[in-house]
Amino acid sequence: MNVSKSSPKVDPTTDPKLRAFFHVAEDSPFSVQNLPYGVFRKKEDTLRTARIGVAIGDKVLDLAALDAFGQFTGPNLKGKKVFSAQSLNAFIAMGRPAWREARLTISALLTSPDSELRNDTFLQQRALIDMTACEMMLPVEVGDYTDFYASRHHATNVGTMLRGAENALNPNWLHLPVGYHGRSSSVVLSGADIVRPCGQIVPPGSETPIFAPSRSLDYELEVGIVVGPGNALGEPVPVERAVGQVFGMVLLNDWSARDIQKWEYQPLGPFLGKNFATTISPWVVPIDALIPFCCAGPEQDPEPLPYLQTRGKASFDIHLEAHLYPHDGSDALLACATNYNHLYWNVAQMIAHHTSNGCNLRAGDLLGTGTVSGPEKESRGCLLERTWKGEEPLELSSGAKRTYLEDGDLLTLTGWCQGEGYRVGFGECAGRILPARISH
Amino acid sequence: MNVSKSSPKVDPTTDPKLRAFFHVAEDSPFSVQNLPYGVFRKKEDTLRTARIGVAIGDKVLDLAALDAFGQFTGPNLKGKKVFSAQSLNAFIAMGRPAWREARLTISALLTSPDSELRNDTFLQQRALIDMTACEMMLPVEVGDYTDFYASRHHATNVGTMLRGAENALNPNWLHLPVGYHGRSSSVVLSGADIVRPCGQIVPPGSETPIFAPSRSLDYELEVGIVVGPGNALGEPVPVERAVGQVFGMVLLNDWSARDIQKWEYQPLGPFLGKNFATTISPWVVPIDALIPFCCAGPEQDPEPLPYLQTRGKASFDIHLEAHLYPHDGSDALLACATNYNHLYWNVAQMIAHHTSNGCNLRAGDLLGTGTVSGPEKESRGCLLERTWKGEEPLELSSGAKRTYLEDGDLLTLTGWCQGEGYRVGFGECAGRILPARISH
Repeated sequence: MNVSKSSPKVDPTTDPKLRAFFHVAEDSPFSVQNLPYGVFRKKEDTLRTARIGVAIGDKVLDLAALDAFGQFTGPNLKGKKVFSAQSLNAFIAMGRPAWREARLTISALLTSPDSELRNDTFLQQRALIDMTACEMMLPVEVGDYTDFYASRHHATNVGTMLRGAENALNPNWLHLPVGYHGRSSSVVLSGADIVRPCGQIVPPGSETPIFAPSRSLDYELEVGIVVGPGNALGEPVPVERAVGQVFGMVLLNDWSARDIQKWEYQPLGPFLGKNFATTISPWVVPIDALIPFCCAGPEQDPEPLPYLQTRGKASFDIHLEAHLYPHDGSDALLACATNYNHLYWNVAQMIAHHTSNGCNLRAGDLLGTGTVSGPEKESRGCLLERTWKGEEPLELSSGAKRTYLEDGDLLTLTGWCQGEGYRVGFGECAGRILPARISH
Repeated sequence: MNVSKSSPKVDPTTDPKLRAFFHVAEDSPFSVQNLPYGVFRKKEDTLRTARIGVAIGDKVLDLAALDAFGQFTGPNLKGKKVFSAQSLNAFIAMGRPAWREARLTISALLTSPDSELRNDTFLQQRALIDMTACEMMLPVEVGDYTDFYASRHHATNVGTMLRGAENALNPNWLHLPVGYHGRSSSVVLSGADIVRPCGQIVPPGSETPIFAPSRSLDYELEVGIVVGPGNALGEPVPVERAVGQVFGMVLLNDWSARDIQKWEYQPLGPFLGKNFATTISPWVVPIDALIPFCCAGPEQDPEPLPYLQTRGKASFDIHLEAHLYPHDGSDALLACATNYNHLYWNVAQMIAHHTSNGCNLRAGDLLGTGTVSGPEKESRGCLLERTWKGEEPLELSSGAKRTYLEDGDLLTLTGWCQGEGYRVGFGECAGRILPARISH
């Protein structure tokens, strides 16, 4: 996958032999090959000013502090103070040359024998902060959030449940990456509680709806793609340049109230069944850190139309897991273990399709992949599929059965690329279910 | 319709007898009873700084200038410099007390015998600008844009064409205001050209798609509702307080590529068939100016669930028109003449439903009503309906037939409430079709 013609063939920031000048555990998601960006503030800082940092092992590297100490000297970043912002949007809007400049600088500060950070304990004290002392914020102001439906296994399973095996995939599904607009106001950060939504539900055996708390609250394991710098309205992004519009990726939980969704979604698609909350993880893993884990995706038959044709390794080998921590104190349950490479449609195709009519993407926009389900039962990325709409409940260590999420349950997503002796990981994307607030 | 308990029973700003101290034509959309807000800059201003103004007759009243001259002395606005902003969002976020304070001040400046504006020609020179000397900007930064489907006539017509008369309305339609998320990045201002979108289209007689310019480019006559100050995530807006979340209204053209939409929309709703452009008019008519034109909407049967029940005059008597100016120079064609009061679902119901699951609205968010079709052929608000999917073309004065929009066509929306000797109008929402840009 060619990110751009100016990319070096060997990227010094992803060399598997690189090690930071301090200890980073082999199973830490945040190796020196990763360098994900986030927005944080120090819990004990009375001013509590948010700024941009990079996760490295169990530390946060404060980029605003590094900048104040004159560490960013390249032409794109010097004097711009872009790391003192409250979100990544301005940095993302600067485009790939600035992203590369930042990454090369940060990698060198953490690995080079003569880096100032390594040799200046005063600078270390200012710029390296224990992660436990930091509070994370939403990394981006999401202008628009689009959710795709890119796993053939997921679309087939859901279609089979709704319409039977013969009509599982709609006629359009193999020709284009189906997507729809989600809600950006309710994108929340990992850790935010999820209030069970109320809505119109048609009880079994009835034909008319009641207004009640959802009885089939579900999660969806997805990956979120943070895009930038964006394209002008009316100017499509060609598929061969589309990966150049990817800043990085996060984990994304597309919480779904299946009963609300089922009643409302015809003919204009999901609305209140989804837009009560979408959770993302705090650290944006840069596309450059993921490139070494490129791999082939599923074969595409029929061949896509020319504007969607990609070559070579267009997917990523990212292991993904969902864990359910039941409210009754039962053992954590591995609800799903899957891989990004099960997705039928790749990210270049999503971006090329999204902009093919001239629609403009802006820096910080968020694209969800859709539920990343694989071929096995254990790789189904939501409870609707995993329990086959509740007919095959999961069994907890307490002996209790679980179909959909119950009040007090905690659901976490994790994911990582496995290198030799290091990981490029996403950390955690977590949310706990709170009871519905009934006002009617 | 009770906007809030603090509203006076008689609003001095909407007294039909009020007249500005200078001439405003009887058929001007911008009477002194209207006072719509917009963002403008002076064409000849070399700094070209955008700021907030109010339309009055053929003038723009510069609120930033009035503020600089100390005309806003109330507790909400004094010293806040909110009218020097590049969008209305900060003003909208201040909420109803600030909106009232501004409106009372502006109304008095334009009508009171002893107003400084009336008696100080220097102030007039600074604050009253010919509308022709002004360039308008988008009035709001739209965080999220939601489009409803609230006309029963429109939903029935479209459903009949797609599924036959017996299955025209989906089972949910009479129970909830169906809506979906639109795209906020491609909301553009009246006057912006509309490039014909390309996309996947299945030609007649074929089962597989091609990638080509849309052959059925349509408009949709809608009203856009600008909301604020908004609600916190997890805290629904009760229906009886929902109108208090309406800042004002604009005209909205939900441009639609019917062939792209038809192929893509199952199962997740419209996407590229809509998100290439949505045009809004520049002047936001305040809810207070519309209240005198409240009227009853259609009877609702079945009775809505309690969280959607409203009483009294929940609709508005707003006359709406669409005109087509054909590229061949034929006479302008009245493509549609309809009224807002044909909408089955009212704005309080839209807002209560949208937030009923806890979804948060933010200041400046935009809600489209959906196509405002009425019962007669002439009141059908899009060409899909008006030409019955192209089977009944419109005839132009040149003798040419027209089904969908052609390159070079200009489409304008207008609308107004008719008072005695004055109008509360929206001005114009216009866009001209440019040929597709083919890059593949």
